[in-house]
Amino acid sequence: MLNKPGVTESLAQRVVATRWEDIPLHVRHQAKRSLINFFAVALAGCRSGPIEIALRTLAEFSGGRQITVVGRAERLDALSAAFLNAACANVDDFCDTHIPTVIHPTAPVAAALLAHAELRPASGPDLLLALILGNEVQARIGLAMSPSHYNRGWHITSTCGVFGAAAGSGKLAALNERQMVWALGIAATQSAGLCECLGTPAKSVSVGNAARNGLWSALLAGKGFEGPPEPLAGVQGFYHALVEKADLSFITDGWGERWEIMATSYKPYPCGFVIHPVLDCVLDWRRDNPIAEVTRVVVRGHPLLSVRADRPNISTGREAQVSVQHAVAAALVAGKAGLDQFTDACVGEPDVLKLRDKVKVLRDDSFPTIAAAVEIATADGKVHQSAQAAARGSNVNALSDHDLEEKLRTAAARWNPLYDVAPLIDAVWAIDKSTDVSKLASLTVPR
Amino acid sequence: MLNKPGVTESLAQRVVATRWEDIPLHVRHQAKRSLINFFAVALAGCRSGPIEIALRTLAEFSGGRQITVVGRAERLDALSAAFLNAACANVDDFCDTHIPTVIHPTAPVAAALLAHAELRPASGPDLLLALILGNEVQARIGLAMSPSHYNRGWHITSTCGVFGAAAGSGKLAALNERQMVWALGIAATQSAGLCECLGTPAKSVSVGNAARNGLWSALLAGKGFEGPPEPLAGVQGFYHALVEKADLSFITDGWGERWEIMATSYKPYPCGFVIHPVLDCVLDWRRDNPIAEVTRVVVRGHPLLSVRADRPNISTGREAQVSVQHAVAAALVAGKAGLDQFTDACVGEPDVLKLRDKVKVLRDDSFPTIAAAVEIATADGKVHQSAQAAARGSNVNALSDHDLEEKLRTAAARWNPLYDVAPLIDAVWAIDKSTDVSKLASLTVPR
Repeated sequence: MLNKPGVTESLAQRVVATRWEDIPLHVRHQAKRSLINFFAVALAGCRSGPIEIALRTLAEFSGGRQITVVGRAERLDALSAAFLNAACANVDDFCDTHIPTVIHPTAPVAAALLAHAELRPASGPDLLLALILGNEVQARIGLAMSPSHYNRGWHITSTCGVFGAAAGSGKLAALNERQMVWALGIAATQSAGLCECLGTPAKSVSVGNAARNGLWSALLAGKGFEGPPEPLAGVQGFYHALVEKADLSFITDGWGERWEIMATSYKPYPCGFVIHPVLDCVLDWRRDNPIAEVTRVVVRGHPLLSVRADRPNISTGREAQVSVQHAVAAALVAGKAGLDQFTDACVGEPDVLKLRDKVKVLRDDSFPTIAAAVEIATADGKVHQSAQAAARGSNVNALSDHDLEEKLRTAAARWNPLYDVAPLIDAVWAIDKSTDVSKLASLTVPR
Repeated sequence: MLNKPGVTESLAQRVVATRWEDIPLHVRHQAKRSLINFFAVALAGCRSGPIEIALRTLAEFSGGRQITVVGRAERLDALSAAFLNAACANVDDFCDTHIPTVIHPTAPVAAALLAHAELRPASGPDLLLALILGNEVQARIGLAMSPSHYNRGWHITSTCGVFGAAAGSGKLAALNERQMVWALGIAATQSAGLCECLGTPAKSVSVGNAARNGLWSALLAGKGFEGPPEPLAGVQGFYHALVEKADLSFITDGWGERWEIMATSYKPYPCGFVIHPVLDCVLDWRRDNPIAEVTRVVVRGHPLLSVRADRPNISTGREAQVSVQHAVAAALVAGKAGLDQFTDACVGEPDVLKLRDKVKVLRDDSFPTIAAAVEIATADGKVHQSAQAAARGSNVNALSDHDLEEKLRTAAARWNPLYDVAPLIDAVWAIDKSTDVSKLASLTVPR
């Protein structure tokens, strides 16, 4: 089955053949939403510790000041900038999610495409089409091996992101079918990333590489650097090595009828998405009860909530992103759950520490991942019940365009309260009218 | 079993603790042989097609003229040079082999170390010790998952090479234990490479990446960029993702008692090593029978000889490297089997084409991979039998130091007959007396 011929070629054909006119309006709009979210999370992450180290390390080797680093005055060569911007967008666990695969899709693709678009001329529709197609390719390659690939320990955002970045960059570079197959092959042999690195800065390396190496795959292929004819389904190819069993029908079936970017959700809170419905309940309650003293919180949710996020004892902001105890405590103390609630400093706050010990997690197999129930006991002896059936930001309770703009504004203001993001936001919503997007990323840099 | 704690840490401890004084003389000498062979094969490959494209592509992004590209006037930043020099050394399938794993060990490690040694001060013993330890780390990581990892389609030179390059570069950078664990973790999440790409230029991408990304892992770790504590054996770590079952005892057992670099063989012919015993027989016979007209050749060998190399119809030099029919025909025509016998031009030569059709391959399960028997029928009606029990260059019939020097001289003369490699050869043999090896690689560049 894995030896079925022509899968990679069929995929390449579709990427090469799909035109801007083939993309429905709602899909184009969703791509803009993904870009707004990308800039928001990249701005949020662009000064975090791992990014500072990676930037310092790359700067020694970077070829000139070719390309914008989101939110910063420093500039890097295109490959290094693709790496760093993808890492910025993913470092805080705040980026978008392709629900069926758990891929965080836009970081690797958009970072590669923005670098390409600053290096070589591209229009807004060119960029948006490449983003939609890159997203489509990585989601489909991931769907064909979900969930077993991720369960095995592969960081699917990285392993599939490199294909998305390659296909998208290849589209921007106007590769022909043969070159697109080569680009996908060069991407396949660079596909890497382990979930063991989650919760550590090393996570950002494979995400950054996905963007860098995908971009590089397309640039090499465009210069005639050849790869094998069937990198995906070959007997020693990608699926054979990386998963027990692949369902190759996902690669091209229904191409152009459904668009995987429509299955993207955007996070309202910078933490594991299983914690989100809990935070919805807690924040709503706190808004209505701003001064009540909490004595006990019992959280009930999908098994993943306890498996991944039942972490009463943590010591860093990075761990806080996957601790329901911390998230609840910090949200109760601050009345919000933004980036400042998932820092090392917040983890050490006495009020948060005290509340953290009062949070219990119960597992309930009947809950989907996007639902949770919360019971809050207060010092006056009352017990308050609440529930969230579909978390804010999930695909059935999506963030509005306004919510996404607000997310971007908040992220930008965190580093520089005077930075005016209106030109950036306007440019993204109007991108399909732009004939030259080479200056788009530079709008993220405060003057 | 995979969850056994401390494997990565134990490995890191040993790498950090091992000193130059711990390395026996014969191991030091073998490392010099590996370096001579590295320069030979890098010189052989430094102007091949894929290298030219990769160099052109990287040059646009390279940060200045930091580091030597073997055999060329161009210089690149350290990360790009590490990539390119490893690719040069591996592109022709002419490099060394760690017999028990089939890893080609020196290309990724030496390329990373030479870049590091040109960037930051290092002595000859520093470089040689790092080379030996990098080799040791990648071989042991590979042994723990051999042969199933390779059989699954993973290009083991690339997937393990990144660890060798990281450990060796980390040793040169004098990382402490904790940083060495991080470096190995950052390497683990970049480990990639598929055998599907063998026979195409894309193969060189994962080999080059192994050097580049290993070097980069060490540089990041040295600046405090953290990774997980158990990247190798963690529940979502390297072995869990990349192989069915690993034997972790290989990672540290017997450290310092045996040295894996002693299991390295060096190729006399630039083609698949299963073809080598056949070429020994054919070349010996041709030397004694320079003008006899050959009418038929029957080759008998290990099953891999037919599985991998029974390819009567090929059209490129790259395919020729794994065609026993071509290799025999070209060797009979030219009386030798060097780089010129595995080019596109040679594949198209009428005399070679005519002879190629007269070569048959028989499978014999009783033969080891390093043995073969050859029967040559000539126009005078005679049938000549010969056999090779242990191919030249194999671990039990190793190339002499003189053979290796000759391999280097021949490779260098191919691009530039006037280039004097004596200073390079002398420098390698005397490297343990050198206090500064920053100029070593530049001796590969003809004046």
